[in-house]
Amino acid sequence: MRGAVLHGPRDVRFEERPVPTIVKPTDAIIRIAAACVCGSDLWPYRGISAVNEPTPMGHEYCGIVEEVGGAVRSVRPGQFVIGSFFASDNTCPICKDGYQSSCQHRELVGGAQAPLLRVPLADGTLVATPDVPPADLIPSLLTLSDVMGTGWFAADAANVKPGMTVAVVGDGAVGLLAVLSAKQKGARRILAMSRHSSRQKLAREFGATDIVSERGDEGVARIKDLTQGLGADAVLECVGTVESMTQAIQAARPGGYVSYVGVPHGVELKADELFFTHIHLHGGPAPVRRFLPELIDLVWSREINPGKVFDLTLPLDQVGEAFRAMDERRAIKALLRP
Amino acid sequence: MRGAVLHGPRDVRFEERPVPTIVKPTDAIIRIAAACVCGSDLWPYRGISAVNEPTPMGHEYCGIVEEVGGAVRSVRPGQFVIGSFFASDNTCPICKDGYQSSCQHRELVGGAQAPLLRVPLADGTLVATPDVPPADLIPSLLTLSDVMGTGWFAADAANVKPGMTVAVVGDGAVGLLAVLSAKQKGARRILAMSRHSSRQKLAREFGATDIVSERGDEGVARIKDLTQGLGADAVLECVGTVESMTQAIQAARPGGYVSYVGVPHGVELKADELFFTHIHLHGGPAPVRRFLPELIDLVWSREINPGKVFDLTLPLDQVGEAFRAMDERRAIKALLRP
Repeated sequence: MRGAVLHGPRDVRFEERPVPTIVKPTDAIIRIAAACVCGSDLWPYRGISAVNEPTPMGHEYCGIVEEVGGAVRSVRPGQFVIGSFFASDNTCPICKDGYQSSCQHRELVGGAQAPLLRVPLADGTLVATPDVPPADLIPSLLTLSDVMGTGWFAADAANVKPGMTVAVVGDGAVGLLAVLSAKQKGARRILAMSRHSSRQKLAREFGATDIVSERGDEGVARIKDLTQGLGADAVLECVGTVESMTQAIQAARPGGYVSYVGVPHGVELKADELFFTHIHLHGGPAPVRRFLPELIDLVWSREINPGKVFDLTLPLDQVGEAFRAMDERRAIKALLRP
Repeated sequence: MRGAVLHGPRDVRFEERPVPTIVKPTDAIIRIAAACVCGSDLWPYRGISAVNEPTPMGHEYCGIVEEVGGAVRSVRPGQFVIGSFFASDNTCPICKDGYQSSCQHRELVGGAQAPLLRVPLADGTLVATPDVPPADLIPSLLTLSDVMGTGWFAADAANVKPGMTVAVVGDGAVGLLAVLSAKQKGARRILAMSRHSSRQKLAREFGATDIVSERGDEGVARIKDLTQGLGADAVLECVGTVESMTQAIQAARPGGYVSYVGVPHGVELKADELFFTHIHLHGGPAPVRRFLPELIDLVWSREINPGKVFDLTLPLDQVGEAFRAMDERRAIKALLRP
């Protein structure tokens, strides 16, 4: 089969790869219905994270179970399933607490930008939809594998509750879906920080009540202006740079909540300053598995439509263009059809 | 009157100071029943924090109201009161959230190591005891002004709940009272990190079930050993150094809680590493005012005896020896009687 492989900075190739097979009895093989490019794929693509060897790309996936190992009990061939980028056993004490992405036996899933994918720990990782979905639901179901689960975790980790004022830092796909998540959790005001008109538009569609186009100190000042000088009750940091983390921490009210869900790159936090902000800080790789059943229900009942973040759809063999469009910010997020 | 004034590193003098008077109608003047030396007083005493001018010392206090300004309504002369080191209005939105130490109108209280003290924002800062207390309760009531309130906040901010396994980093007075607080909040196991036998003894008396005398990586390994390899549900960081913060973060289980209540000094946290620990991080200067009513009840009913942390009692004019004994770790905490 042919799939996407990253060879070095800006060198992603659609090339022959071995067909995945059952390696352990807990594995499943999925026929990919749709895959996509993640914002985090851009770190190695841009050469910011090292690429030490040719690396099969893609960790967001949904599709039909093709085959399962002998120990798999909860999913069977023919079912449509969604899983997380971290495979988990979903039975260890950490999983039981809802932190499946820190599972004691977690394994990274990779190589989903291809027709077929091996998923380890299938019973603890995959969740089946009620039926094989209609085609128009597939983009939204695909987002649950990572980007929507991550936006949802941003809202969850920042303790978003009905009536709150929430600020979202970052207008990438995660930030936009964090807006949708905050709305779904009942936030009264949602301040989306964005300076791109197409993203502002989608943010408003997802529930943003105010757009803050200023950045840095000016952005913080604007958030304070909009919150009687206090800062937001919750700030959802969806980028992972020094600038975005600083902005998020400073935009929260004392005693407020800041979540961070994008892998930070070279960010050092001064505890001496953090101390006097009195914020609650929580984040990490989203425990997508925790949220899958609830989010599948919301998509299945068409209560939410997170698939709108895909503003570019390409056949899988044009994966190179999908990376370029996202790298150049021409696309918010690119969906790939095998 | 004579009180303690810090002139420079290791130069604390008991010398003449002006008698405090009502400056604003919201002030109260307190006749100090007992004061003490705080661990945080040692930072400027040791020259680690700058002393730019002669500074009246002491911010932990309790005593009888001597006089109140014309706007004070909630306390009156003759009452025995306790207040926080941060004066607060207790009416602003931040106070109403329980973060009085970030009150929009907060003022630092200073100069309590003296016979008389001016407390600003008396209505929002001071809480009266049910009656003038018997002498033997005064040490415990004094701790509520800071050190016990801070230990309590450590447990509160780390979400300590019945049945949890809690680790406490630091065996100073705050750490010891964090042990007591965790016990009071129902922790099942309390792992106290300490290598001093007198402090280990008090930690056990306050409720520690295990003593961990190793530090750094060995200390973390020991905590993991004691928790089936997972780490503690909650870790209470009561020191404020790079070593203690690192140890606290590494000793928590994924998805666990870490509180930090000692002012950090030169601590930088790598967000890139913090991200993958999945911890909840919360702390700051303890909002003592939030806890005063509940803690006064617990002391008044003799359910807790936090005053045991005072292992040295001196007349106020020997304040120099009180600082020396704490600096040299001969005393856990020194009480001063005017």
